[in-house]
Amino acid sequence: MAVRSFLMLTLHVSKRAKAVIESPIRKFLPFVRLARKRGLTVYQLNAGDPDLAVPPAFFKAVRNYRSKNLPYAPSPGYSVHVAAWLKYYRGFGVKLQPQNILPTVGGAEAILFALQAVADPGDEILVFEPLYVSYKSFAAIAGIKLVPVALEEEKNFALPPARVIEKRISRKTKAIVVVNPDNPTGKLWSEKELGTVLKIARKRGLFVISDETYREIRFSGKPSSLLAVRNARHNLIVVDSVSKRFSMPGARIGCIASFNTGVMDAALKFAQARLSAGTLEQYGLIPLLEHAGKYTKKVRDEYRRRRDVVYRALSAMQGVSCGKPQGAFYIVAKLPVKSTEDFVAFLIRDFSYQGATVLVAPMKDFYVTPGLGEDEVRIAYVLNTATLKKAMEILARGLAAYLAR
Amino acid sequence: MAVRSFLMLTLHVSKRAKAVIESPIRKFLPFVRLARKRGLTVYQLNAGDPDLAVPPAFFKAVRNYRSKNLPYAPSPGYSVHVAAWLKYYRGFGVKLQPQNILPTVGGAEAILFALQAVADPGDEILVFEPLYVSYKSFAAIAGIKLVPVALEEEKNFALPPARVIEKRISRKTKAIVVVNPDNPTGKLWSEKELGTVLKIARKRGLFVISDETYREIRFSGKPSSLLAVRNARHNLIVVDSVSKRFSMPGARIGCIASFNTGVMDAALKFAQARLSAGTLEQYGLIPLLEHAGKYTKKVRDEYRRRRDVVYRALSAMQGVSCGKPQGAFYIVAKLPVKSTEDFVAFLIRDFSYQGATVLVAPMKDFYVTPGLGEDEVRIAYVLNTATLKKAMEILARGLAAYLAR
Repeated sequence: MAVRSFLMLTLHVSKRAKAVIESPIRKFLPFVRLARKRGLTVYQLNAGDPDLAVPPAFFKAVRNYRSKNLPYAPSPGYSVHVAAWLKYYRGFGVKLQPQNILPTVGGAEAILFALQAVADPGDEILVFEPLYVSYKSFAAIAGIKLVPVALEEEKNFALPPARVIEKRISRKTKAIVVVNPDNPTGKLWSEKELGTVLKIARKRGLFVISDETYREIRFSGKPSSLLAVRNARHNLIVVDSVSKRFSMPGARIGCIASFNTGVMDAALKFAQARLSAGTLEQYGLIPLLEHAGKYTKKVRDEYRRRRDVVYRALSAMQGVSCGKPQGAFYIVAKLPVKSTEDFVAFLIRDFSYQGATVLVAPMKDFYVTPGLGEDEVRIAYVLNTATLKKAMEILARGLAAYLAR
Repeated sequence: MAVRSFLMLTLHVSKRAKAVIESPIRKFLPFVRLARKRGLTVYQLNAGDPDLAVPPAFFKAVRNYRSKNLPYAPSPGYSVHVAAWLKYYRGFGVKLQPQNILPTVGGAEAILFALQAVADPGDEILVFEPLYVSYKSFAAIAGIKLVPVALEEEKNFALPPARVIEKRISRKTKAIVVVNPDNPTGKLWSEKELGTVLKIARKRGLFVISDETYREIRFSGKPSSLLAVRNARHNLIVVDSVSKRFSMPGARIGCIASFNTGVMDAALKFAQARLSAGTLEQYGLIPLLEHAGKYTKKVRDEYRRRRDVVYRALSAMQGVSCGKPQGAFYIVAKLPVKSTEDFVAFLIRDFSYQGATVLVAPMKDFYVTPGLGEDEVRIAYVLNTATLKKAMEILARGLAAYLAR
């Protein structure tokens, strides 16, 4: 036994493995299972996992796959699939060539490829916090330091002046990340804000990683892509995903797109290392990408109705503060509690109302800066309006019960 | 224009992007397309992309997927899918708990997770060369140094004595990689060789990353897993894939398995960062994993027949030397040429016989040590025996033509 303990002591996992945080969105799932075992209904508003039906054309195309083989897709994607992406992007005035775009295993892999293409261990990437958590995880894995600029709930997550942003740029900074519409804040970036970031990037020789996963889920103005902005072409890397606009995160298909040939060469080599993205899904997505608008307008309208329900309910809760989201399907709410981690644990373990409870995501881990967001939650409105009303009532009653303890 | 050039100069991709090599297996594909445009048939023996039919139960299960949603799978995999893996491993005397195994996006992601779980930038991992190329790519991306121990074609890739291996271990070494049966050599590791590696690992406090992708494709003895070896449990990380045994690399499903809780905790956090592996494929694979032997015996027998065809043909070629592979579906042949890169380019661009040519993989890039393998090719026998005979004739004639230039 002594020998064995000694051996086990010498077997350490890597520092990067320790540096990666557990998902704040997924870590409460074991408690969800326990709550369900106790007979409770759990309304899950913690993850960005759309409840809407996938456009049936996808399943039809998958069922029509007639080969007896399931080979590797080409690393740069099936040409028919890539052609569908090109058509999709032409709908936003963006004329890509096949070499400017590469299908990825979800938007997640596109983020990873973009970060790795521009930054080495020790390099810095400027981000706005709160921030979609996978950026933090991938940066930790890749040894990249994220340098945060805080956007404040009180100011409805408006961009601070250019000088505030520029102060955070060092010689090690390689890129600025913009998620638009934003997860977790629901912020829709204004033309002016985007212009500020692009101007800084060009002036300082930085890449802009533009995460446009929620492109069509915006409640004003027309969907667009920064790729259509001609004067920042070579600085720009777009990461994208079909997961949200077509309600199909289980397909694991996204893409990375750029006019910068160095970036796309890097992405292709990364893609070759992992061989290919899903074969069936690349075929299945062709009709969706070719006729995207047909599906996404309905999706946007549904999320707008839900946004209104959730925003109204939260605004009516005493001590709760939140801005009105302009896009994506999230809302950040500041609660009159010290620790939303503790409050969420209370909701899922100790509270129920009429046989149900609700799960939302504590926001602490969406920040890079320690100590921020401890009184905030992210709510993903991925249930229908009737259910959302119930869930909001449970949240209100849960909050009152928590405060009255 | 001057300003623009200046800006473009300041936008560099990362060092790691430059360090990753282009896939030696995939870089000739543009020439394949050109050859086909010229009307040639190209027999592709370059990639490990099985031509065999996928077990139909997979497509049946996928077509029976009846939900209208396609949600994220849980990051640790669907429990029914994980249960099928557990059953599969019990067939080899390995009793895993769900927390000991995690489905991945292909064997590729399992390799990446294993490397990242044990090594930080600057750390070393001991490998045997020639080596499956994705290890090189992922190590370059992750900033890990691969330290090679050469296995020689002349010695039929036998393991050198322990002291030769131990000499290559430093304080920075974190793990030893064993691919068994091996890609690219077709080597089947003997019990004694495996024992040597495990002994070194335990003595020096190292992990063993055991890549068992080709487990069932072995031409003698019974399929097994190092996970069944009880006294090295905590050192061992198995990476696995369904791609080869079920002829379905396009499914992008593999797994990482270990009794080491630190490693599995790390793998789960990595998995959460990328959210999930394919939903449809996890369901589709359940009947295959549950009844694996039903499919894999036929597969093994077919590859044995092919091995015989290719080995016989190569042995009959003057100046060509090769060992007899004992597993996987590759053979390494030493050719009487200076550069197989140049020879392969000749085959695909300048040669044809009866309207056809053949593509094989030059071996140079399968080595970590520069200068090795320049006269070797890897042949993947992923075509039926009749076609393989034709392809081997083309190779023989192509070689003669190349030497006669």
